[in-house]
Amino acid sequence: MAFTKDDFKELVSNIQSQAWYKNPIGFGIAKVDRGQLNPDKILQATYPVINWEENYGSAAIFLNALKEAGEEIDTSKSELVFKISDKFLTSCIESFRPYIPEAKGNEHKNVQVISTLASLPIDSGLTADDYRVVFIFEDANPLSAESVYLKLYALSTGKAALRSLNLNGAFGQLHNSAWVGNKPIELEWLRENEITLKLSGKYPSITKVDKFPQFLDHVIPADNTRILDTNKVRMGAQLAAGTTVMPGAAYVNFNAGTEGAVMVEGRISSSAKVGAGSDVGGGASILGVLSGTDGVPVTIGDNTLLGANSCTGTSIGDSCILDAGVTILPGTKITLSEKAVEQLKEINPGKEISTVMKGMDFLGVNGVHFRVNSQNGQTVAMRSTREVKLNADLH
Amino acid sequence: MAFTKDDFKELVSNIQSQAWYKNPIGFGIAKVDRGQLNPDKILQATYPVINWEENYGSAAIFLNALKEAGEEIDTSKSELVFKISDKFLTSCIESFRPYIPEAKGNEHKNVQVISTLASLPIDSGLTADDYRVVFIFEDANPLSAESVYLKLYALSTGKAALRSLNLNGAFGQLHNSAWVGNKPIELEWLRENEITLKLSGKYPSITKVDKFPQFLDHVIPADNTRILDTNKVRMGAQLAAGTTVMPGAAYVNFNAGTEGAVMVEGRISSSAKVGAGSDVGGGASILGVLSGTDGVPVTIGDNTLLGANSCTGTSIGDSCILDAGVTILPGTKITLSEKAVEQLKEINPGKEISTVMKGMDFLGVNGVHFRVNSQNGQTVAMRSTREVKLNADLH
Amino acid sequence: MAFTKDDFKELVSNIQSQAWYKNPIGFGIAKVDRGQLNPDKILQATYPVINWEENYGSAAIFLNALKEAGEEIDTSKSELVFKISDKFLTSCIESFRPYIPEAKGNEHKNVQVISTLASLPIDSGLTADDYRVVFIFEDANPLSAESVYLKLYALSTGKAALRSLNLNGAFGQLHNSAWVGNKPIELEWLRENEITLKLSGKYPSITKVDKFPQFLDHVIPADNTRILDTNKVRMGAQLAAGTTVMPGAAYVNFNAGTEGAVMVEGRISSSAKVGAGSDVGGGASILGVLSGTDGVPVTIGDNTLLGANSCTGTSIGDSCILDAGVTILPGTKITLSEKAVEQLKEINPGKEISTVMKGMDFLGVNGVHFRVNSQNGQTVAMRSTREVKLNADLH
Repeated sequence: MAFTKDDFKELVSNIQSQAWYKNPIGFGIAKVDRGQLNPDKILQATYPVINWEENYGSAAIFLNALKEAGEEIDTSKSELVFKISDKFLTSCIESFRPYIPEAKGNEHKNVQVISTLASLPIDSGLTADDYRVVFIFEDANPLSAESVYLKLYALSTGKAALRSLNLNGAFGQLHNSAWVGNKPIELEWLRENEITLKLSGKYPSITKVDKFPQFLDHVIPADNTRILDTNKVRMGAQLAAGTTVMPGAAYVNFNAGTEGAVMVEGRISSSAKVGAGSDVGGGASILGVLSGTDGVPVTIGDNTLLGANSCTGTSIGDSCILDAGVTILPGTKITLSEKAVEQLKEINPGKEISTVMKGMDFLGVNGVHFRVNSQNGQTVAMRSTREVKLNADLH
Repeated sequence: MAFTKDDFKELVSNIQSQAWYKNPIGFGIAKVDRGQLNPDKILQATYPVINWEENYGSAAIFLNALKEAGEEIDTSKSELVFKISDKFLTSCIESFRPYIPEAKGNEHKNVQVISTLASLPIDSGLTADDYRVVFIFEDANPLSAESVYLKLYALSTGKAALRSLNLNGAFGQLHNSAWVGNKPIELEWLRENEITLKLSGKYPSITKVDKFPQFLDHVIPADNTRILDTNKVRMGAQLAAGTTVMPGAAYVNFNAGTEGAVMVEGRISSSAKVGAGSDVGGGASILGVLSGTDGVPVTIGDNTLLGANSCTGTSIGDSCILDAGVTILPGTKITLSEKAVEQLKEINPGKEISTVMKGMDFLGVNGVHFRVNSQNGQTVAMRSTREVKLNADLH
Repeated sequence: MAFTKDDFKELVSNIQSQAWYKNPIGFGIAKVDRGQLNPDKILQATYPVINWEENYGSAAIFLNALKEAGEEIDTSKSELVFKISDKFLTSCIESFRPYIPEAKGNEHKNVQVISTLASLPIDSGLTADDYRVVFIFEDANPLSAESVYLKLYALSTGKAALRSLNLNGAFGQLHNSAWVGNKPIELEWLRENEITLKLSGKYPSITKVDKFPQFLDHVIPADNTRILDTNKVRMGAQLAAGTTVMPGAAYVNFNAGTEGAVMVEGRISSSAKVGAGSDVGGGASILGVLSGTDGVPVTIGDNTLLGANSCTGTSIGDSCILDAGVTILPGTKITLSEKAVEQLKEINPGKEISTVMKGMDFLGVNGVHFRVNSQNGQTVAMRSTREVKLNADLH
């Protein structure tokens, strides 16, 4: 039992020095939604708090408490998932004791989770089976729905960078469910109860059928971030503060998003990201690695405007303009005047710029305005009217 | 009364041999939502089970039970709609008796409907007025909301082929309502109660105002089908197993859909259909008969890719590619090189292919890649890189 | 106290003749949703009835009742917002007495509001703090959430014309909130309660995060108007009767909308409006003043067709056609044949029409068909096939 903060620190050091112990990359305690027919099926994992390369003291306490509760802890595995138990909770509370009085607001969130779990009313209908303690020790292919969710949280809370996590096989760990808002239902349960539900007027209002929940089901955005339709942002997307996602043709898929305040009225496909101050116009489409990008993830620079109904299949630099309705794919041939070549060279020292370039050649080229000449159908590039901040290192 | 399955079969034969009797094309029992002000207005009909060119034994039992309950059965009409009654239910139960013990899961669904209706708790607030028995004897213009719904179910459950049913006048049989999820409300009721509802903080969260419900309000999709936003698929659409409908700019209207696993990120307008393995890119638009197609329904073949923000107003064959942002309307003039003509003739034996073709000339032509030349604005067609399976009958 | 309608009229005249009194432009009584943490924060104002340049008798009664209840009434301010009180309600009831018996249905809606407020059940949990009486005396920058809502209602109910109201600074008066349907929640409250809500399985199904509610949260559309997805129309939009808003890529922002029956499958950005009988095709984009329009609000004429995935950044006349996928920006150079010039001059007497025009030159030009020549990429204009009604005054 820890009576003082020093006791706590000593306890943590002691745990961390043991041979079996290893700091996890990420960990957290989740409330899980289980199948209505098959309670072993994890339909969703909801984390009140996630830890990602941080709070190793709490990780040590959790792992030690599990060990004390009789669980086998093999930290050589890429991930571990356990049910909680009274023993686990009691052990955590004893260790966290010196922090419990000050665990409020933003302080000691893991302690708050344990205190809250320990004080849930008995008549809530929830049991220890409805919670999981989850650890990721290695960024390998996820092996459980719980670890997929932990990674999606790491992305959506901005604790892990877009494209930085291994999500291979993630789809295979998730179950396709019918959702009523943020509550998942097994499709098979619906089928078994369809006749009774429909005849009694109690058939639920299904809001979607998918393996993923929505971003807003799990993450509270910054005060100046707006998502005008929850269906437009999938869990696992990342939205920097100040981003606005409009409800027309917008969509931000998982492992995709924004790196600063961005106006999103178009599609940011999985693996694509958009820089600060940029504007993804109405119906503009930024392609994902699975279609039309030759497998290279697309990055849109800062302060760039993608016009309405434009389509981008290759990376675009800072301070660019893509006119409404214009499509730039990796292989699109783009014509530049001698003057345009000169002007673009000036603000992009060291870059190869010539009178005919392909879409993919514009990687890292700033200040470009892409248009289609309405008199002859030629796709052209010229110097944009947007201010370009030169990279000081190059001068 | 039927005591054995043989008794049941004899009873059915006996009914079917009577002069007044005719097998219906489709039938089922629906729970109906009626107007809050005008209870005779049918706002929605929810069928736990529909029968379409099948289960004629149950049809005979239902029609006979209605006749015994005193209803006039005129099978020369295109459709019949009746309220249920205790007499009707009792008669059905007596006839179905030998099947009741085994009516579970997928077995004897019509028997399950009758058993469930007979055992609904009295305190449910539902009465015989809230149910209808519905028959369609002829595929004529629908004459009731109940028969419109039965046809929409036939389409959405895949029991009737897309474009195969007469839906003329269907809109006129439906009432425009405000919906709170899957519950319709008369607009006039809302108006009459607006002041009280708003001042008491009980004004409902209206999710849409339309004559149609959504697909997911009535149909449980296959385990590998996904609909990421219920608003994106209207009741009466048909989605083959494995289809995914994304939430960006996608939409599948009634009497439109997919014939195999298709990724849908664009619009499939009413009357359009898309073949197995195809991909409707983000914001891609497949036009309906009412706009830009010269009135001919558009069919997209198998294994075809419609690029992001492309637009298709005419039918496209198998294994085609329409580049992102390209528009092909029936009258669009498309240029082919001599080499393209030769290559396309090779995989499309017997088809007329020449160096200038119109969009509508590509009906049934496979393996075409449609692009716009970014150097001169010319819309061109060439051999796509996609594998084309030749029709064995032509060789 | 008013015993007869003549007493009432005399009372109103008497109030109106007083020096302090001034007729408001708009007024109404709102139920307000207040912050869960900060009850002084107005998250939403719901008006059962709004008055806009009308019902000055009720305005006089309300203002007088507030004065009698001890409020300071300074009608030289651009707007006034007050809490209600028992004194205010009693005074209003005494003045409205002769109208109370006939205040039903569409008659005397302000009287109905007062009667309903006076008779709300005590156990409703609502107090006088949950209501506001709001007046706008001058169309200045709004200074409160309540007056912003009143202006949005004026637009959405069609009582004020699109673009006619001063909404400068409106965003600053509204609070970004998480919404569960039509109920706003402070983001900070969610943060403070996240752990408990998530662990107890009571985390709410957030449907969006925005400063604005949706049109359907506040306004009941005409019987023949359809909005297939509530997320597609923001409060402050205006939809003329007979308008249909589809769920694919459509969106109608605040201070934008339709002036007659319009099919909307694309985006109508803030400040844009579309004339009767027109069709905004799937994914078509009408740009707002903030992007690509050179700051001039775009008006689409009557009976005009904007094709799927087209983009319009400049005003277009009546009976025009913009082909699917075509983009017309203010500076787009458009080529016309001699014949096209002649035909368009004939139906547009007095207009400047020449063989090369810019997009912005087509303001007020009717009967134009905009296309891109698929053989040479040239954007061209010709006489559309749509009937053009000539302005009789010009002949």
